[in-house]
Amino acid sequence: EATTDGIDLAVVAGDGIGTEVVEQGLAVLEAALAPSGTKLSTTEFDLGARRWHATGETLTDEDLERIKGQDAILLGAIGDPSVPSGVLERGLLLKLRFALDHYVNLRPTRLFEGVTSPLADPGEIDFVVVREGTEGPYVGNGGALRVGTPAEIATEVSVNTAFGVERVVRDAFARASARPRKHLTLVHKHNVLVHAGHLWRRTVEAVNAEFPDVTTDYLHVDAATIFLTTNPSRFDVIVTDNLFGDILTDQAAAISGGIGLAASANINPDRTAPSMFEPVHGSAPDIAGQGKADPTATILSVALLLDHLGYTQESVRVQDAVAADLAERGDVVRTTDQVGRDIAARVTG
Amino acid sequence: EATTDGIDLAVVAGDGIGTEVVEQGLAVLEAALAPSGTKLSTTEFDLGARRWHATGETLTDEDLERIKGQDAILLGAIGDPSVPSGVLERGLLLKLRFALDHYVNLRPTRLFEGVTSPLADPGEIDFVVVREGTEGPYVGNGGALRVGTPAEIATEVSVNTAFGVERVVRDAFARASARPRKHLTLVHKHNVLVHAGHLWRRTVEAVNAEFPDVTTDYLHVDAATIFLTTNPSRFDVIVTDNLFGDILTDQAAAISGGIGLAASANINPDRTAPSMFEPVHGSAPDIAGQGKADPTATILSVALLLDHLGYTQESVRVQDAVAADLAERGDVVRTTDQVGRDIAARVTG
Ligand SMILES: CC(C)[C@H](C(=O)O)[C@@H](O)C(=O)O
Ligand SMILES: CC(C)[C@H](C(=O)O)[C@@H](O)C(=O)O
Repeated sequence: EATTDGIDLAVVAGDGIGTEVVEQGLAVLEAALAPSGTKLSTTEFDLGARRWHATGETLTDEDLERIKGQDAILLGAIGDPSVPSGVLERGLLLKLRFALDHYVNLRPTRLFEGVTSPLADPGEIDFVVVREGTEGPYVGNGGALRVGTPAEIATEVSVNTAFGVERVVRDAFARASARPRKHLTLVHKHNVLVHAGHLWRRTVEAVNAEFPDVTTDYLHVDAATIFLTTNPSRFDVIVTDNLFGDILTDQAAAISGGIGLAASANINPDRTAPSMFEPVHGSAPDIAGQGKADPTATILSVALLLDHLGYTQESVRVQDAVAADLAERGDVVRTTDQVGRDIAARVTG
Repeated sequence: EATTDGIDLAVVAGDGIGTEVVEQGLAVLEAALAPSGTKLSTTEFDLGARRWHATGETLTDEDLERIKGQDAILLGAIGDPSVPSGVLERGLLLKLRFALDHYVNLRPTRLFEGVTSPLADPGEIDFVVVREGTEGPYVGNGGALRVGTPAEIATEVSVNTAFGVERVVRDAFARASARPRKHLTLVHKHNVLVHAGHLWRRTVEAVNAEFPDVTTDYLHVDAATIFLTTNPSRFDVIVTDNLFGDILTDQAAAISGGIGLAASANINPDRTAPSMFEPVHGSAPDIAGQGKADPTATILSVALLLDHLGYTQESVRVQDAVAADLAERGDVVRTTDQVGRDIAARVTG
């Protein structure tokens, strides 16, 4: 059930193709909400490369406070080659994920009918990666000494807590339990990263007791990349750490038709702050402003947003519209706007 | 040129299928050395699960000293489910790599004629991954507090030094410079792991000045998994950190016919200790002792061994024999012994 009478949505279009795909995502969102008369109030946040160049700011405390007052965030893409690497990622995108406690980074992977996989024999692909979003090597707990000298040393610390691992593992089990196959695969590298890995492993074993209907297995991250190539059908729900999840979900996108189709949700399951919905792809400055970007990943992220806010039927309508569009897409090249318009028309029915 | 009159080889068959594949690797090595009359003296080292169960030892100082006296090491596979995860990996395999300063973990990937890739349109695949072998998240610099309690915290520290990064980057440039395409791709995640990533990036830029004929580019590790799926032909030499290299080389094996074919060399380029040659695959306890394991990865590792010791012609003969065997392999199922024997016969000519 919807948690509000209407939706107050923070819109962070961001950089490059972000603006273009978000526009279409919003059009589809409007179309999905129209029948129920649900009011959508959007607030645009000027965040990203432009703002940083103009003001030196990435995300101020004030921005963050205003965003916290919204029901959800729709994000396009963050990043531009003109900004030093890491500034916007750490200062804006990851800051949002961490500050809003998006500990479930949800990335569904599905090979839709009509979509060609680069795999010769992909089989049925329908799994979801539950990537931890607030710990691991992403915590920013690194440093460097004697930078630029032959004696330089740089460290990156992966931080993993029982608190953080348990909550994301429990969420992943709940998702697995609600799916027909009820299978959960833990991916880590516990034969090398023994401390973090054993924490993850023990946690999966312990939480399994709460979900006795869910079967589990374990794969080292390197082996997981093999199975994603040779037998992706074996996966139902994958739970994994922040960095492994980053890597595996790009590979997952690749085998299921590319990052033009890969949606993601940064979820705060406790609803203490708004969740954030964004395509897996980046800002793609090389094709920005040309109407070439595929808005489908953003539109599927909108479906995740609707589902999270309790608009279940509306979410299904959007997913079905995307599925129908993909099934008939063929080789026809359409602009970003056209794809958005076509999918919105299907949602309207 | 060969560095000795003969080869003193440490043989670590290890666990599971390790014994079976090493036997065939040795047979091919003998066949390759026979024409020149080069003497091969092998010393077997009983290391792995059996030894650990019997004595609690993984690799003693004495083992290590004896191994240091050899010219090279041929390793089958280490690991068994009966041994707690991490014990043999950290205490034996990684200990060898670290103690013998195997800072270049070389993993060539080639789609041989006759081998079917799981990719629908693989194109030509012929690249080599230069994986750093003595730093990164593999250093064992982690720990855990309050284990087993809700307040548990586990850390893993990735350690990266200018010393360690520069030497492997220089080695990778030299390899790129010797290849027709002369292209080097750095893979990291410098937008998140900013300290380590920027060290790698600056180092590649600096060392490029010594190899002006080599072109370079950069990919985030997540994007690299996409290109390995959609366009593996774009890669020539990849240089990357220990963990990213572990992940990417399993994916590389998968797209080029599986880990049954993936060879690796743990090289100490300064020759202060013997280098180690091993298939990328593990001990595969599920098929051990059944004669089902493919010894090809080990045989290709023997080719890397020959090359490293200066037996260039012999190395080429082994590679050609494997290529010929693969070209005619088809769907015929042969035992481990038969594959080894067939390849050895081709080496003998
Ligand atoms: C842009 C980058 C910081 C981000 C990540 O690594 O999480 C992206 O790759 C993603 O997967 O959303
Ligand atoms: C067994 C394991 C420690 C090892 C590694 O992670 O390096 C293996 O996966 C490899 O790639 O050689």
